[in-house]
Amino acid sequence: MKLHGIFPPIVTPFDHNGDLYKAKLRHNVEKWNLTTLGGYVVCGSTGESVMLTTEEKVQLWEWVAEFAAPGKALIAGTGMESVRETVALTNKAAEFGYKAAMVRTPHYYKNLVNNADAQKLFFRAVADQVKIPIFIYNWPQATGLDISAEAVIELSEHPNIIAVKESSGNIEKLMKMVRESKPGFQVLSGSAPTLWPCFIVGAVGAVLAFANAAPYATIAIWEAFRTRDFEAAEDWQNRIAHASVLVTTRYGIPGLKYAMDLNGYYGGPPRLPLTVASPAAKKEIEAAFSDLKG
Amino acid sequence: MKLHGIFPPIVTPFDHNGDLYKAKLRHNVEKWNLTTLGGYVVCGSTGESVMLTTEEKVQLWEWVAEFAAPGKALIAGTGMESVRETVALTNKAAEFGYKAAMVRTPHYYKNLVNNADAQKLFFRAVADQVKIPIFIYNWPQATGLDISAEAVIELSEHPNIIAVKESSGNIEKLMKMVRESKPGFQVLSGSAPTLWPCFIVGAVGAVLAFANAAPYATIAIWEAFRTRDFEAAEDWQNRIAHASVLVTTRYGIPGLKYAMDLNGYYGGPPRLPLTVASPAAKKEIEAAFSDLKG
Amino acid sequence: MKLHGIFPPIVTPFDHNGDLYKAKLRHNVEKWNLTTLGGYVVCGSTGESVMLTTEEKVQLWEWVAEFAAPGKALIAGTGMESVRETVALTNKAAEFGYKAAMVRTPHYYKNLVNNADAQKLFFRAVADQVKIPIFIYNWPQATGLDISAEAVIELSEHPNIIAVKESSGNIEKLMKMVRESKPGFQVLSGSAPTLWPCFIVGAVGAVLAFANAAPYATIAIWEAFRTRDFEAAEDWQNRIAHASVLVTTRYGIPGLKYAMDLNGYYGGPPRLPLTVASPAAKKEIEAAFSDLKG
Amino acid sequence: MKLHGIFPPIVTPFDHNGDLYKAKLRHNVEKWNLTTLGGYVVCGSTGESVMLTTEEKVQLWEWVAEFAAPGKALIAGTGMESVRETVALTNKAAEFGYKAAMVRTPHYYKNLVNNADAQKLFFRAVADQVKIPIFIYNWPQATGLDISAEAVIELSEHPNIIAVKESSGNIEKLMKMVRESKPGFQVLSGSAPTLWPCFIVGAVGAVLAFANAAPYATIAIWEAFRTRDFEAAEDWQNRIAHASVLVTTRYGIPGLKYAMDLNGYYGGPPRLPLTVASPAAKKEIEAAFSDLKG
Repeated sequence: MKLHGIFPPIVTPFDHNGDLYKAKLRHNVEKWNLTTLGGYVVCGSTGESVMLTTEEKVQLWEWVAEFAAPGKALIAGTGMESVRETVALTNKAAEFGYKAAMVRTPHYYKNLVNNADAQKLFFRAVADQVKIPIFIYNWPQATGLDISAEAVIELSEHPNIIAVKESSGNIEKLMKMVRESKPGFQVLSGSAPTLWPCFIVGAVGAVLAFANAAPYATIAIWEAFRTRDFEAAEDWQNRIAHASVLVTTRYGIPGLKYAMDLNGYYGGPPRLPLTVASPAAKKEIEAAFSDLKG
Repeated sequence: MKLHGIFPPIVTPFDHNGDLYKAKLRHNVEKWNLTTLGGYVVCGSTGESVMLTTEEKVQLWEWVAEFAAPGKALIAGTGMESVRETVALTNKAAEFGYKAAMVRTPHYYKNLVNNADAQKLFFRAVADQVKIPIFIYNWPQATGLDISAEAVIELSEHPNIIAVKESSGNIEKLMKMVRESKPGFQVLSGSAPTLWPCFIVGAVGAVLAFANAAPYATIAIWEAFRTRDFEAAEDWQNRIAHASVLVTTRYGIPGLKYAMDLNGYYGGPPRLPLTVASPAAKKEIEAAFSDLKG
Repeated sequence: MKLHGIFPPIVTPFDHNGDLYKAKLRHNVEKWNLTTLGGYVVCGSTGESVMLTTEEKVQLWEWVAEFAAPGKALIAGTGMESVRETVALTNKAAEFGYKAAMVRTPHYYKNLVNNADAQKLFFRAVADQVKIPIFIYNWPQATGLDISAEAVIELSEHPNIIAVKESSGNIEKLMKMVRESKPGFQVLSGSAPTLWPCFIVGAVGAVLAFANAAPYATIAIWEAFRTRDFEAAEDWQNRIAHASVLVTTRYGIPGLKYAMDLNGYYGGPPRLPLTVASPAAKKEIEAAFSDLKG
Repeated sequence: MKLHGIFPPIVTPFDHNGDLYKAKLRHNVEKWNLTTLGGYVVCGSTGESVMLTTEEKVQLWEWVAEFAAPGKALIAGTGMESVRETVALTNKAAEFGYKAAMVRTPHYYKNLVNNADAQKLFFRAVADQVKIPIFIYNWPQATGLDISAEAVIELSEHPNIIAVKESSGNIEKLMKMVRESKPGFQVLSGSAPTLWPCFIVGAVGAVLAFANAAPYATIAIWEAFRTRDFEAAEDWQNRIAHASVLVTTRYGIPGLKYAMDLNGYYGGPPRLPLTVASPAAKKEIEAAFSDLKG
């Protein structure tokens, strides 16, 4: 399964009671369907997965499978702390036609799981029991731990582990994984602000929160890279530099949801304790997105 | 509600299919009932709460409420990343007669929640909506963030936030919270290896994983402190020094479960990716618990 | 050599050209001579040692040896990154009658020295070549690394390594070193805000920046502990709680120097990039020291 | 002053008594003179500057000035914790004809200097008082703190601060500094394993420890970049990938010195507590450098 191109980990729309908002989800997906995004990651970190019940996740998988245009790859975020629950969720998603699952590194019991042996055991145990291929999802900024390049390289040998999404921003690590993992293993970037150099050093695709609000700009970098138009790539990279930081590192999901509101998507409110972007943050975001269309 | 004395965050027994093991839970609780433990924390970190489904948590709350002797305080571990789910779980536990809930600091979206404003919003929003009092649970070794003494002190003003369980091991912070929080607010230690000095500086109780396997030794420190028998307190503290580190920091839940097996409780296997203690770890644990009865 | 009691790591007085200020150093030392402080640490971190040239350090050692009252133990801060320079400085201090040297953990090349083997090699190599005993100085807040209790315990076997100054504030670690190091090895606290519980668990003395400005209050805790007057100890500990944080963690050397100015010592300006305390900081310090005499 | 191209921060050769080894320094410099290296950084971290006395640093500056071929830029590593000593050393180096100084971020008193205000004060105070331009040197792996892109961008406005050497490996930060610092301000990479993508995103030169042992390979990447031969750049980057990690992150200065010994330079022993590379490390290094000439 090819994961080339740009994949947004889609946000979860809530109504003002905090419930899932089906109509707005449909609106967003149908608008993204008009782009050349490679597909959708449903229930990733950007989708507030850690705020969702199991029932809500299943509901979201069902709905997005219904709304997505043919040809868009469906990917489910299914990583939990236990092998058992990760497997159960992944196989549930497979029932709705999802083609791959993005599985976050377990991280809560750091003294026990922050080592290569535990990580390899976890991913192999999951990969052995699921009906669709998985990819490793590393986001140290949230999990507080950073799976090593060496562990990922070893895991790349497993036939059911097909990719890694590296969101640490560490380009040296990304280069090492590209160089040393099994041929065909796919390294994906999770960092919009470094997208262009990541492609240069061998990333084949990217899972980008920023692409929820500004898919065309990220696709432009991808297309420029593929056609070897390095000036265009650099230019687009510079154009998204500030905006992509604002809606990820700086203001996170609330900022991203506001940028979506600006760009014709539905962002809406996040779940507490996340709160809507402050007026000052909104103003910054408006300025940064003024020439980035949705 | 007084939280004086020793409270084990009880482990969750699984059978060899990995399902909840009701008979063994009953066995453990009935054995603990014979001690002067103050009560039970059900679905804390030591209970592998992050590995349990919502249905399993509710089941555990029901069973422990059924098995616990009268007079044992029932406390539910209910902290989730969202206010919404934390409130729902807490109120569910209240239905089964739980008297308080232990609520972990939210921690996943660190760039958004690792600040006092977000933490205060979270705990106040929860405290406002739940039917039983809550206490703040801080365990930086797992969550990767450390709520400040200042934030806890401010939160101590809320009538429905009655305590903090401080598991960071930072005694300076514990002293500050004792000194500056609202009179009546209870500071609990979460660290067996420093139990005696924590009592000296004002902790009124403790939530100790180690007490699952060796309740008498921890109660002995508590009793020695209450009767001002400082030599006995120091002596008991030295006796548990090594064992308490082995089954927490060093070997974690798998080590603790093995110590329980040694001491007449049922520990059994943890859920993957946690694995049973290695033969070498078991040997160390056997030696350390040879004179600590269950 | 006994290191019982309280030892200030003395500040270095500078005049308004930034040069060493001999008259004010004499003034400070003579005023401290009137107390029951156990002695002086000259050229520790609080003495801005990393801002001093070798010539200035030697000058300070000479002057303090001249000004100190008989019976005050003279201790030199001599730790450098290399064994070679640490040995040279320690033996230089010995020439002036210094009785022990405080040697900081090397820390710059963290990938090479942040491990027990390198640390043991460093301290043994120094201890083998110096004419006076040394003690290990651990201050992770500055060095960025934390020598383990296990390494210190092994080093305690060396006949020329007589103590550790543990400034990490980790009381569990301090307890372990007390319990497991060679009999006679001395564990010193470096943390005024936790002085009383540190004594309770076995520290025999303390090297306290705060004692520069308020020697009597720290001596009071020490005396209360020795006479088993635990209420007085707790009371004094509470009285210094806020002030001791202000002049260490919060405002550092500039804050401490200002508190000294308030209490009849000479503090004066620090060296750039440290700057004198801000007006707001000064006000806080004045309030906190209003009932703590010098 | 242009800092384009590759600059090794040269190692300091010691004889077997641990003294400076003038003849071997001459040998190394004369061999490097035959390459198109842009110049030499004398007394940087790789030169074991934190292990050297002031007299030794001055001696090294004098000798290298004597041995260097005309046209090689002379740069002195002069950063100390105090403004005063940094200024004194920088102006001393200027007397020997050094054209710029590399100034490390101060880092010891982290609670006071790990903030943009203190960092800006430090660099501006130094820059105002020195006779040659300086550049900011950021190496968080050693200092334990990471000067922000924002602070560097503000400092780029100072006429006497001409560059930054960014060794954190964070390419997003490097991109931001390239984009937002004053036109003409030079961003240098300090990371051989990411050299090629750093050039792609705007670094104009590099200060590379690895270049001590393998100057031609690093120059090859620089030349390939300049001539837009991206395949050659990628190829050379892959060829140095493993070797450059071995002699920096993995085995540090001892590993680098051994690689120099292999390649016709003099590496020799480091100063304790650093120790010569282990036999196993040497074997790895031999393999990695087998096709990288000096």
